[in-house]
Amino acid sequence: MRATIMYAAGDVRVENVPDATLVEPTDAIMRVTRACICGSDLWPYRSMEHSEDGQSMGHEAIGVVEAVGSGVSRLKPGDFVIMPFAYSDGRCEFCHEGLQTACVHGGFFGFAGLNGAQAEALRIPEADGTLYKVAGGTDEALMASLLSLSDVMGTGHHAARISRVGPGRKVAVVGDGAVGLCGVIAARRLGAEQIILIGRHPARVALGRELGATDIVTQRGEEAVERVLELSGGHGVHSVLECVGTEQAVLDAVAFTRPGGAIGRVGVPHYTGIPAGPTFYKNVVVGGGPAPVRAYIEELLPDVLEGRIHPGRVFDRVIGLEQAPDGYRAMDAREALKVIIAS
Amino acid sequence: MRATIMYAAGDVRVENVPDATLVEPTDAIMRVTRACICGSDLWPYRSMEHSEDGQSMGHEAIGVVEAVGSGVSRLKPGDFVIMPFAYSDGRCEFCHEGLQTACVHGGFFGFAGLNGAQAEALRIPEADGTLYKVAGGTDEALMASLLSLSDVMGTGHHAARISRVGPGRKVAVVGDGAVGLCGVIAARRLGAEQIILIGRHPARVALGRELGATDIVTQRGEEAVERVLELSGGHGVHSVLECVGTEQAVLDAVAFTRPGGAIGRVGVPHYTGIPAGPTFYKNVVVGGGPAPVRAYIEELLPDVLEGRIHPGRVFDRVIGLEQAPDGYRAMDAREALKVIIAS
Repeated sequence: MRATIMYAAGDVRVENVPDATLVEPTDAIMRVTRACICGSDLWPYRSMEHSEDGQSMGHEAIGVVEAVGSGVSRLKPGDFVIMPFAYSDGRCEFCHEGLQTACVHGGFFGFAGLNGAQAEALRIPEADGTLYKVAGGTDEALMASLLSLSDVMGTGHHAARISRVGPGRKVAVVGDGAVGLCGVIAARRLGAEQIILIGRHPARVALGRELGATDIVTQRGEEAVERVLELSGGHGVHSVLECVGTEQAVLDAVAFTRPGGAIGRVGVPHYTGIPAGPTFYKNVVVGGGPAPVRAYIEELLPDVLEGRIHPGRVFDRVIGLEQAPDGYRAMDAREALKVIIAS
Repeated sequence: MRATIMYAAGDVRVENVPDATLVEPTDAIMRVTRACICGSDLWPYRSMEHSEDGQSMGHEAIGVVEAVGSGVSRLKPGDFVIMPFAYSDGRCEFCHEGLQTACVHGGFFGFAGLNGAQAEALRIPEADGTLYKVAGGTDEALMASLLSLSDVMGTGHHAARISRVGPGRKVAVVGDGAVGLCGVIAARRLGAEQIILIGRHPARVALGRELGATDIVTQRGEEAVERVLELSGGHGVHSVLECVGTEQAVLDAVAFTRPGGAIGRVGVPHYTGIPAGPTFYKNVVVGGGPAPVRAYIEELLPDVLEGRIHPGRVFDRVIGLEQAPDGYRAMDAREALKVIIAS
C-alpha cells in the first residue's frame, strides 16, 4: 500500500510500504477515506534530523473499518469511523475520566515509529476504545467537519474548556491557524461574549470573523498586549486559547489574561517555562495539553451533524495521497491553511 | 505608638512611630489585639537590603476598630474584626467575583511602604471592604484560629480550592510550614481521600498527622517523587498544594501530579518558570497566587466558630510586641512554627 513517510526536514515521500495488518486481537485495520496535514506536522517538516527508516506521518483521519481482530467487539468491517489522533483502550481510569490522551495503553499515531494516517490504510491499536463509529455519517458535505473531530476541532474545544470559556466571558484566541480558528468556533459555541482573534494572515483572520471572532488584533508582543487590554476594557480577557506554542505567544497570553482568568494551551510548547511570577500575582490558571478529542466527539458530533458548527471550513485545499509532499510544502509556505488528503 | 520595623536582613526593631491616624474618609484605625509573623516575612528577613526608612511589618491580625472615617458605614468603634492581609474596596468587579487580592483599589499590608500589623494599631484603607466583623467573637480559646483566617488558613484553603481537592481525591501537600499544615486542614475539610504531607520537620509532620495527613514523605527531589507515586498507586495525586515556593518544590509537584490533575501554588514563587513540557503532556492545570482570604472568611468562619476546624493549632508560641525581633529569630531558626504577637 502507499503511505507518506518523512525522512528529514523538507523530505516527505509517498512510498510503497507493507500492507497494514492485524497484529494484536484488539487491532482493527482502517481504510482511510480522508486524512489531513496538521500544523504540528510542520515542526518536524522544519527541523527533523535525517532518519534512515523515516517516520510514517499523519494522525487525523476518517475512514472505514476493513478488518477487526478477534478481541474487537464494538466494530465490524464496513463501519464508518472517526480516528482520534491518540489511540486509547477505553477501559483504564483515565479513559473513564475522559482524558484518553493519558490512557495507560495509549499512544499517538504517526509518531515515534507508530504508523500514520496519511496512507491508504493503517493499523488501529485498541480499536474498540479508539475509533468512534458514526452511524449513517456518509453525507459528503459533512466529511471535512467530521474529519476535524479527529483533532483540530477537538483541540480548539479543549483550549476553550480549559480556559473556562462560557457566557459573558471575554476571550482571546492566540493564533489564526486551523486550531485557533476552531478555537473561535468553540468559544462562540460556548457562549463567549467577546472573541478577540490574534493573527496577521488576512484570509485567515477574515475567516475567523465569519466563524465568530468579534475583534482582530494583528500585532504581536507588547503592541498586541496593549490592544487586547484596550479591547477588553482594561483588565484583560477571562480566557485565552493559546494555539501557537511559541514563547512569545505564551508571554503575550499571560500579559493579557485578566486577574483570576485562565489560559488553555494547545500549541505544542516550544518554550521551557510558563512565567511563574505574573501568573501567580494575577491568580491566573494555566492548563491544557494534548486534547482528549475522543471524549469531545460525543459532545461536538451532534452540532456537526445538525449543522450548528462547520469546523470543516478550516480546510482550504484537497489533494490526493500522491500529492502529500506538495501539501506539506503548501502549508509550510502558508499557501494553504489546512490540507485534506482524500482517497 | 510601638511598631515593628525591618531595616535589613536580620535587623528587626520595635520602635516608637507616629500614632496611626485616619487619612481618607474610607479609613478605619484598628487596635491590634493579635498579630503574627508569616513565613513570607522570613524572605526579607533573610535577604532585605538596608533601608534608611525601614519597612513596617505584619499583614495578619485581629483586633478592635478604634475609629472610622466619615465614609465608613459598615463598621463602628468597638467592633471586633479580622484583617485580611490585603485590603480591598469591596465594590470593584474583582471584589464582587471574590478575588479581593486583585482589587483595583487594593494593596498589601506591611509591604512597599504600607503600614504593618505587628504594631499597637494600624490604618486600614477601604475599611468597609477590608475588615470582616465577627459578631460576639470574643472567646479567648478561638482567637488563634480567628487570627489564622487573616492569612494562613485562607491561604491553605486557596491552594486546596485551586488544586480541586474534593471527595475521593488523592492530595499531596508540599511543605510542613504553617500554610502547608493549614492546607492539610483544608484538604481534610473538603473530603480528600488521601493527604500526603511532604515535610521533614518531626514536630510539624506529627502535627500534620493530627490535622489529617494520612501519609508523610520526608524525602525531597527524585526520592520524594518516587515515594508519592508509590503511595498514590502509581499515577500520582489529583491535587497538589504547593506551599513552599522554591524551584525544587515546583519540580517535585509537577512530577507527582497525576495526568489531568491540578497544582495550587500559594508559596510566593522564588523561581522563574513552571515547567512547560511536563505540565502540557500530562494536561496538568497550574493555578494559585495571593489567596482572596477576605472571600474565604465567609466559608471558613462557621467551621472555626463551631469547632469543626482548629487552624489556630499552627501557632506554637505567643510573645509580646516588644519581643517581635526574637519572634523572627525563632521562626527563622525553625525553633517556632508560627508566632503570635499578642497585645
